[in-house]
Amino acid sequence: MPNYLRSHHCAQLRIDHLNQEISLSGWVHRRRDHGGLIFIDLRDHNGLTQLVFDPDVNSDCHTLAHQLRSEWVITIKGTVIKRAQGMANPNMVTGEIEVQVNKLDILSQAKTPPFSVCEETEDIKEDLRLKYRYLDMRRGKLVKNLQMRHKVMHQVRNYLVDIGFFEVSTPILCKATPEGARDYLVPSRIYPGSFYALPQSPQIFKQLLMIGGMDKYFQICQCFRDEDLRADRQPEFSQIDIEMSFENIDSLFKLTEEMFTTLYENCLDKKLKTPFKHMTHKKCIDDYGTDKPDLRIPMHLCTFNDFAKKSTFSIFLNALEKKCLIKAMKVPGGADISRRMIDQYTEFVSQFGVKGLGWFKMQDDKLQSSIAKFFDDSLQQEIIKHTQMNNGDLLFIIADKENVTNQALDHLRRHIAKERDLIDKSKDAFLWVTDFPLFEYDDNLELQSSHHPFTAPHPDDLDLLDSDPVKVRSQSYDLVLNGYEIASGSQRIHDPEVQQKMFTLLRLTPEEIKHKFGFFVSALSYGTPPHLGIALGFDRMMMIFLDTENIRDVIAFPKTQKASDLMLEAPAKVDGEQLRELKIDIDSEEIL
Amino acid sequence: MPNYLRSHHCAQLRIDHLNQEISLSGWVHRRRDHGGLIFIDLRDHNGLTQLVFDPDVNSDCHTLAHQLRSEWVITIKGTVIKRAQGMANPNMVTGEIEVQVNKLDILSQAKTPPFSVCEETEDIKEDLRLKYRYLDMRRGKLVKNLQMRHKVMHQVRNYLVDIGFFEVSTPILCKATPEGARDYLVPSRIYPGSFYALPQSPQIFKQLLMIGGMDKYFQICQCFRDEDLRADRQPEFSQIDIEMSFENIDSLFKLTEEMFTTLYENCLDKKLKTPFKHMTHKKCIDDYGTDKPDLRIPMHLCTFNDFAKKSTFSIFLNALEKKCLIKAMKVPGGADISRRMIDQYTEFVSQFGVKGLGWFKMQDDKLQSSIAKFFDDSLQQEIIKHTQMNNGDLLFIIADKENVTNQALDHLRRHIAKERDLIDKSKDAFLWVTDFPLFEYDDNLELQSSHHPFTAPHPDDLDLLDSDPVKVRSQSYDLVLNGYEIASGSQRIHDPEVQQKMFTLLRLTPEEIKHKFGFFVSALSYGTPPHLGIALGFDRMMMIFLDTENIRDVIAFPKTQKASDLMLEAPAKVDGEQLRELKIDIDSEEIL
Repeated sequence: MPNYLRSHHCAQLRIDHLNQEISLSGWVHRRRDHGGLIFIDLRDHNGLTQLVFDPDVNSDCHTLAHQLRSEWVITIKGTVIKRAQGMANPNMVTGEIEVQVNKLDILSQAKTPPFSVCEETEDIKEDLRLKYRYLDMRRGKLVKNLQMRHKVMHQVRNYLVDIGFFEVSTPILCKATPEGARDYLVPSRIYPGSFYALPQSPQIFKQLLMIGGMDKYFQICQCFRDEDLRADRQPEFSQIDIEMSFENIDSLFKLTEEMFTTLYENCLDKKLKTPFKHMTHKKCIDDYGTDKPDLRIPMHLCTFNDFAKKSTFSIFLNALEKKCLIKAMKVPGGADISRRMIDQYTEFVSQFGVKGLGWFKMQDDKLQSSIAKFFDDSLQQEIIKHTQMNNGDLLFIIADKENVTNQALDHLRRHIAKERDLIDKSKDAFLWVTDFPLFEYDDNLELQSSHHPFTAPHPDDLDLLDSDPVKVRSQSYDLVLNGYEIASGSQRIHDPEVQQKMFTLLRLTPEEIKHKFGFFVSALSYGTPPHLGIALGFDRMMMIFLDTENIRDVIAFPKTQKASDLMLEAPAKVDGEQLRELKIDIDSEEIL
Repeated sequence: MPNYLRSHHCAQLRIDHLNQEISLSGWVHRRRDHGGLIFIDLRDHNGLTQLVFDPDVNSDCHTLAHQLRSEWVITIKGTVIKRAQGMANPNMVTGEIEVQVNKLDILSQAKTPPFSVCEETEDIKEDLRLKYRYLDMRRGKLVKNLQMRHKVMHQVRNYLVDIGFFEVSTPILCKATPEGARDYLVPSRIYPGSFYALPQSPQIFKQLLMIGGMDKYFQICQCFRDEDLRADRQPEFSQIDIEMSFENIDSLFKLTEEMFTTLYENCLDKKLKTPFKHMTHKKCIDDYGTDKPDLRIPMHLCTFNDFAKKSTFSIFLNALEKKCLIKAMKVPGGADISRRMIDQYTEFVSQFGVKGLGWFKMQDDKLQSSIAKFFDDSLQQEIIKHTQMNNGDLLFIIADKENVTNQALDHLRRHIAKERDLIDKSKDAFLWVTDFPLFEYDDNLELQSSHHPFTAPHPDDLDLLDSDPVKVRSQSYDLVLNGYEIASGSQRIHDPEVQQKMFTLLRLTPEEIKHKFGFFVSALSYGTPPHLGIALGFDRMMMIFLDTENIRDVIAFPKTQKASDLMLEAPAKVDGEQLRELKIDIDSEEIL
């Protein structure tokens, strides 16, 4: 076996190393034959170095080098020399030098890869990249992403450890809990018919650590949800999980902001302005139609009900009678939007159930539109004043059920911002959203937790718990970055009676409470400190840091949107013997 | 809600803080009424501070303090004062001062806990401590263990990051692989009848990262094995997983030794001597009967076959005819061991299948024993010389099948060392065990991997692969600490043909290879660097560092030896609806 230990990495050699005897190991990236000389770009995780095989220097090496093909693994010894006049490559950090090889060993040959591993090749189908994930890594970008992910992870740990937090690992083999999403189950062999569940989050454990007196906990951990996946979701995902006792929301906000400031400085080389903006959930919905607005977009919504009421436009008047919400959004400079484009936007909002998209353009200090005639001059001036429209602006208006209007305008706002390039990408817009409702209605108009059932109600709203629970605000908060919810947390209930009341309001029977949360309600009753926490979606954070919209770009071995691993070919059939040991059968009739 | 933010922790105040106004929050640890004054030991994760409630200073607080019971959570404000003459407690870091309370708020009441949370109480059943894990934590020791675990984990990370390693998370939802132990399975909802498996280790992933060019990888990760548990095993366990390319075994040993040196210095405040000792697998077995000897025990084995051959003792002579192995172990100063005790040791070794335990005591320069007459004087002197016996020593002898003799003497050696207190606990004995056989025979006398099928054969033994595979040594290594195997690793196969040969020798059919490892064999063929790695059993390491023989003492939320979580009551039954979605049935007939 040849000695493949390296003296340097492939991005390390400079003109300073001239005439030094060095050794390198790596992959053949490119080979070029040039008038008797053979040039090899040798690649490792750090970069490239050009090797030159000169028959006059070492004819054995030169002969052997003829065999080399892309992706073969080799180790060489040689001398650092200056590249010939005019041959320096200013785009390579090692571009001034090359290595004249006097010893070559082939460590591994390679079949022709199914796609080029050059970083520049862009149009490779993602399925192929996932199947050959290890080859995709050699293309450079993915490894750089994983290195940055590592760096951020390590910075998070160092920051939290420095301010007194302890990382504690919590179990993966847990118990099914109704946290909203579907659990992954693991059949137990020792207790046939019983199952573990993979954790949707370490929520219960971190609260138990607080009850146990751990004081300040964190963990970077894997969580699991068996949901139908969206583009930015994976069945298993990483979370930065933080919990602390005897602290308040202000100190949690401060800690989080300092953590991001540190990450931005040390990993992204950017400065952040703190404190972050705050906005109540209500104001978010009023101004942006969503609880995770991208504040980099210079457009916002305003209610239009009062103007509609004063108009003679029957569609709006009918909508008002049906208790619809009418809202408008100004597009600065949008008067250049053609009728055809407006039709396309109308089509766009129709996917959210909206039947029509009203609009005004402002030209010559007047509103122009097919419906302008239903708005008299003074009403038009009122609208212009209220929306601060200028000549050349456009106003879109939607009248529909409250959540439909909000959802459609939120999407339209983001759609137009992207299309018209209105987002200032040099900025990062952090926003704390607070005062969420404690409950929301599910599809059957029954109360369900907006966050989770351990969230403390707002102290000012405790009286409403019995009389009008849906009006109760919670002590929960989300952190939004550039329109993505990247973190979520709350002050927890530390009073077992309040916790019991929450479960009752969520219509859990005493048996269900006992079965699902019995041990937890019991734990609360042995002296629980006030505590609160936050969980950050680490994968999504990395997506934003690395400016990608594909969550798979920030994960070493991700799954597809159909939750399969194309490389492993998992999930897969297993031996019947394994299932017999677990005492489970596959319901094959249903499958066929 | 009272303001429960603290100015200090409960182990922080000293005589330097005299007369300062401070605030503390925590648990009522003990309450004593003393001539009108009420004393409370207030506890948090850091320690205790004595509070004093004086009716002359604040009668409201004093009245309220009458209500306080153990484990209630309170927050107080007060003044640091010096304890009265003769009342200082030198055993408490805060023992010189107390806090005269002028404001008291009760944050949580507490039921009487099922056991005392004082650290001193020792005889609490472990089942009860596991059920109320959060209360067990308040007793102090467990939290200290978890804090130390955290500290070691963080030091490991910092050490590896500083020398250029990247931490990469690998998936938990994987594919079943035959790594020797039973997999935990996770039924897939999207692909009914198919299963994910939880990883027994990230072995395949870390090798793929090397193939992908990550160069230096580590991860502190959870691994899973559905095995019947031993005392130092858990169904999920933590592993420090390390892999690197273009390095050799020497550099891996050096790295590992430096990591332990750092850990010992920074976490245990001890110095370690490097390099660690090395021993071949064969010498381990010869000298200690085991591949994980505790070198702190000053006893070793020696073969006795040649002496037995020269004796007239028919039991030994018969044993030799049956190709048995006869080995002896000297117990220094063991001549004081009574016949009754020897009978007990005979009983002890019988559990390993040994039928008899021979012995000699050396007294007056001669061997004394009921079998001494079968060994003539010159043979006795030969034995004395070879075993370096002195007057007062004892020699135990076992004649049985090779592995029975070795196993019994290994256990006897450890048993006697413990009983006779022969272990120097001030030392830590690290040992690299090398040159393991590549294969071993399973119960059906078929070849199986000793380590795992990706371990490279020893380059000197490649010729034996076809002719005599069981003689082939591997390039694997274990790290043994004080008789525990704490790490295991190997140089990996990077040649796809050698890998294919390994699978063939392990009697995998081409179909099985394709189904189970197809993607991996394929990956090897695209240019694989030489690579090697090691995996450290983190839980077991922490057991040794924290000097406990109970692995549950170093895990926040462990499972019992029956793989159940007594606090969560997991595993548990799940809704039929969940199983219907997964299209699996419980084989209830078999269960009943």
